[in-house]
Amino acid sequence: MITASESLRLRYEDEVNPDGSGDVPDMLAVMLARGSCRSYRDGSVEPGLCSLLCAAALASPTKSDLQQRDIVILQDPAVKAGFVELVGAEAWVRGAPNVAVFCGNNRRQRQLHSLRGHDFVNDHLDAFFNATVDAAIALSAFVTAAEAVGLGCCAISAVRNEAAAVSDLLALPDHVFPVAGLAFGYPAADAPAISMRLPLSATVHQDRYTETDAEAVIKDYDLRRQAQQPYGHQRAPDVFGMVETYCWSEDKSRQYALPERRSFGAFIRSKGFNLT
Amino acid sequence: MITASESLRLRYEDEVNPDGSGDVPDMLAVMLARGSCRSYRDGSVEPGLCSLLCAAALASPTKSDLQQRDIVILQDPAVKAGFVELVGAEAWVRGAPNVAVFCGNNRRQRQLHSLRGHDFVNDHLDAFFNATVDAAIALSAFVTAAEAVGLGCCAISAVRNEAAAVSDLLALPDHVFPVAGLAFGYPAADAPAISMRLPLSATVHQDRYTETDAEAVIKDYDLRRQAQQPYGHQRAPDVFGMVETYCWSEDKSRQYALPERRSFGAFIRSKGFNLT
Repeated sequence: MITASESLRLRYEDEVNPDGSGDVPDMLAVMLARGSCRSYRDGSVEPGLCSLLCAAALASPTKSDLQQRDIVILQDPAVKAGFVELVGAEAWVRGAPNVAVFCGNNRRQRQLHSLRGHDFVNDHLDAFFNATVDAAIALSAFVTAAEAVGLGCCAISAVRNEAAAVSDLLALPDHVFPVAGLAFGYPAADAPAISMRLPLSATVHQDRYTETDAEAVIKDYDLRRQAQQPYGHQRAPDVFGMVETYCWSEDKSRQYALPERRSFGAFIRSKGFNLT
Repeated sequence: MITASESLRLRYEDEVNPDGSGDVPDMLAVMLARGSCRSYRDGSVEPGLCSLLCAAALASPTKSDLQQRDIVILQDPAVKAGFVELVGAEAWVRGAPNVAVFCGNNRRQRQLHSLRGHDFVNDHLDAFFNATVDAAIALSAFVTAAEAVGLGCCAISAVRNEAAAVSDLLALPDHVFPVAGLAFGYPAADAPAISMRLPLSATVHQDRYTETDAEAVIKDYDLRRQAQQPYGHQRAPDVFGMVETYCWSEDKSRQYALPERRSFGAFIRSKGFNLT
């Protein structure tokens, strides 16, 4: 594994300089060296290890001890094939040996109210928000745990493109919704590609949100990424044409210049959430 | 530190049995042994370590490489005092030596569009959702990283109660919003209390969401928690009275039987989000 100092330099240039990488605990070194894994060796992760990872994931913080998240592990080949059919536009998803879907769950909370005879009086955006955050926290902890034992992971946010169909496939009841899928397994390569991040000077603020020449920050980041991790292809050239210098800001703004997920809000409302 | 086997037993009884705790990697053992920390020794975390933790937190997965999250570190005593004034209804928050606020940031994405001349055509629930999930993932990774180096943490979801005021305090611009605060520091006690979790048989599903006698699951969990971690006081007895046997489901349903955060949706909309 590369050292923490090397990971830090790749991600943030010279912004963070621990006094010698030996000072960085192993666990942080693993977290700094992580990257998405989209290519796996054959063979699924044994059920005992899956359980252990779920146990670690669900030991993560949960808002007010409410535990508003669930994990669905796809094992049945027919269910996994159905999932891939829905969200597997990218070929690598088809090769993922294991898939989990992290769900927000506000259903149980409402069951507590029925059981105890107290009205649930907070049926507004907060209910959806809290369950979303809880699920994302568990997803993140699962990824850290999985990577710590040598597995590779890649989140599948495309479940949001087909949220209703994924929900039907997994038989999610009212007030339960998919937040993200996660592919995981034994990686085909020794080490993942490390993705450069925006400079901490732009994303970590002292006391107040501070923005100094956002355009310059983005352009500089574009250039550094282009030098280090150039894009292999341009997105939707039929719509946007080809440009000479293709960069992060171009790719990301093209991505959200194409409509997607317009039905996501309707789906969430159909699950019983009130987003006022 | 207690062993992974002990943590697993405290959290999940006998649901997960690794073959001897020696088989559980250290990092998972740390994650399993974690718990919220609300009591800290004097002394703040040195800035270099804070940076390292932010670097690790922001190395976590981010939807489509968009990095829609920022961290605000509170350092100025006046800002921290203002924060505590807003969200410190619980006394322990006042004693937290370090506070960070994790924010969703959809602002930068929109800046990319302006810069590159592509319309942002996905101005609906997805924009808020993605930034929320990104921030929560980073929060979770920060907690894991901090706990790995021996710090204690406790998320502060009360920022959602006072989202507009917190946003003003931290000068958050449009399309940037607080997801959660996080207290962290050197813990006063050697080990945190480990919180029992709902059984994995109820929260981890195979292929499809499966619910078998939810009431029995909740009642059994109530009883086990009561035996292991009884509540020290009853919530809002002036409203609900006192009951003989006070349990998790009673506490949680009382909590959401009292109105809160009704203005959260209005706040998010005021930040420029369209939640349709």
